[in-house]
Amino acid sequence: MKTGYFSMFDKIMLVHGSGGLETLSIIEEIIVKKMPIKLWNTMNGVGLDALDDGCYIKISDQYLVFTSDSFTINPIFFPGGDIGHLAASGVLNDLVVMGARPIAFLDNIVVEEGFSISDLDKIMESITRILVENNVALIGGDFKVMPRGSIDKIVISGFGIGIAGYKPIIDKIAKGDKLIVTNNIAEHGAAILASNLGMVDNYTSIKSDCKPLVKTVLPVIEKYREYIDAARDPTRGGLATVLNEWVLKTKYSIVIDRQQIPIRDDVRLFLEALGVDPLNVACEGVALLAVKPTVADEIVDELKKNGEVNASIIGEVVEPEEDYLRGRVIALTEVGGRVVVKPNPLNLPRIC
Amino acid sequence: MKTGYFSMFDKIMLVHGSGGLETLSIIEEIIVKKMPIKLWNTMNGVGLDALDDGCYIKISDQYLVFTSDSFTINPIFFPGGDIGHLAASGVLNDLVVMGARPIAFLDNIVVEEGFSISDLDKIMESITRILVENNVALIGGDFKVMPRGSIDKIVISGFGIGIAGYKPIIDKIAKGDKLIVTNNIAEHGAAILASNLGMVDNYTSIKSDCKPLVKTVLPVIEKYREYIDAARDPTRGGLATVLNEWVLKTKYSIVIDRQQIPIRDDVRLFLEALGVDPLNVACEGVALLAVKPTVADEIVDELKKNGEVNASIIGEVVEPEEDYLRGRVIALTEVGGRVVVKPNPLNLPRIC
Repeated sequence: MKTGYFSMFDKIMLVHGSGGLETLSIIEEIIVKKMPIKLWNTMNGVGLDALDDGCYIKISDQYLVFTSDSFTINPIFFPGGDIGHLAASGVLNDLVVMGARPIAFLDNIVVEEGFSISDLDKIMESITRILVENNVALIGGDFKVMPRGSIDKIVISGFGIGIAGYKPIIDKIAKGDKLIVTNNIAEHGAAILASNLGMVDNYTSIKSDCKPLVKTVLPVIEKYREYIDAARDPTRGGLATVLNEWVLKTKYSIVIDRQQIPIRDDVRLFLEALGVDPLNVACEGVALLAVKPTVADEIVDELKKNGEVNASIIGEVVEPEEDYLRGRVIALTEVGGRVVVKPNPLNLPRIC
Repeated sequence: MKTGYFSMFDKIMLVHGSGGLETLSIIEEIIVKKMPIKLWNTMNGVGLDALDDGCYIKISDQYLVFTSDSFTINPIFFPGGDIGHLAASGVLNDLVVMGARPIAFLDNIVVEEGFSISDLDKIMESITRILVENNVALIGGDFKVMPRGSIDKIVISGFGIGIAGYKPIIDKIAKGDKLIVTNNIAEHGAAILASNLGMVDNYTSIKSDCKPLVKTVLPVIEKYREYIDAARDPTRGGLATVLNEWVLKTKYSIVIDRQQIPIRDDVRLFLEALGVDPLNVACEGVALLAVKPTVADEIVDELKKNGEVNASIIGEVVEPEEDYLRGRVIALTEVGGRVVVKPNPLNLPRIC
């Protein structure tokens, strides 16, 4: 068994849960390889082996899309949201970036004995508010209590069900694709980092961006579906991880222009002061799209019209001049140079 | 907010996660009441408010059934299985008792930093083995790591998707229904109790019964669907909790004959020695069915033919002679008396 870094110790390390390449290696080697049945193939679907945000099956002329995510964030109440807000938004966004309209949600909640019932109430309030605002039904779930000391406060698993009238988006970038981010990056990760470091009072403007993209981004994906080659919400691992995943097994390079990547000054300065590259920092209210160049400007305009006023083209997929740049993400620097962008996530243990 | 026992302390107690009436009260008061959208109604479905094992929507002429469950069991390896075995069986069984054929599974795994990779491998081996044996695809999931000390070893959330060509079973017992259990009861709870008490070596014959019911019980449910008014796998809280839930809001009584309830002597004696009523103890490989009396014997025969050789009729739904017996479960005793069976679960904090 080969599980990336530290595997010689036979121990799961925090990095295995970072959302970066080590997480992929665990999933591929311990989980995907064990599963010979590709039922989704016989049902015109796509499943686990795609390692996308979700999976789908086709039933009559509809595609049913499924996704699931666990949320372990610490603190559970943070600037800009709470674990319920995050869980509902995160699951809905995984459906949105598949191009599916979320219709139903199931929540599995595990809490520590002694957990405050009024805090649980607030968290459920957040979940149901997000669902109601986006016309998504809470159709099931589970509730468990673990003894004091055996779980830190609360873990939420969310399952989302969505519908699409067309084939859902399984990420596959093509040469010439333009890359669009829909909003300022790195806000969520910066907020959790500030919280964990006890720096919230010094950086009151830094808040998680966590929000559902059902009303702003989904309509654009639905309208331009045929021009969209890939879509993802860059959570754990940030933009850098998604871009690297997309380009890794291709013969292309992705070139991005750092100066085109929308980021608020407060967030940028805070992360700079800590030596953290914003490209490695989680967003929770942003989508990254790879779209055909002919419609890229139009899509940005449409996103802006829907309220995503910071949407911006940040780069493109190119045939590289040199062979060693294939499968890599290259950033243009402020001084005209270029650097390779590696998928090194800001590895906060409980970022989402 | 009214949340049953101890609510004046604003604290979640272990009893809230027992699967008994306190769990129902938390779910109803903190979760169900917050959800005005009943989307499943417009999609010919049934959802959270049914408080059944799962929920469903109708798409063209198929019913898609969904269920989710979290598993926190301690120990994670126990006589008769492990947490992976339990998670896969438990989720599949929730679909089976809806009458749905499981087709797909998603697993959300949260582990503690330092967790053994070979243990994780064994657990995934169990999950995938159960899925493969039952022709169910693993189509997605999530993997997270929490820092040492913030979660005890591992928590698994499973999400199951099933299909039925008829309306799935939403439990609603009717007068005259016969109650059938498909196998010996109380095995799982007894095994976990023995483990937790360090008594495994003295009771080597006591093992969890955890197993999927896809091959033995589902074909019978599919064949006799129209004669089945209710079906449930009596996990947390055991038979007593399910029977009480079924009868609670009706004008009927459920009468059961303790001597007809299949239980192995080892399990009965072990529980008797501890003063625990087997009716309150979890099963993980048993279904409880409420069926029309005309076909009850036939169904038992069919179950036996499929390998459920201990299947047995244990009681029936009756119009009570006295008003105060309405909505209650009555057990006939060995000496010809009768006692009310209350839903008091064997409240092991991490039984599943």
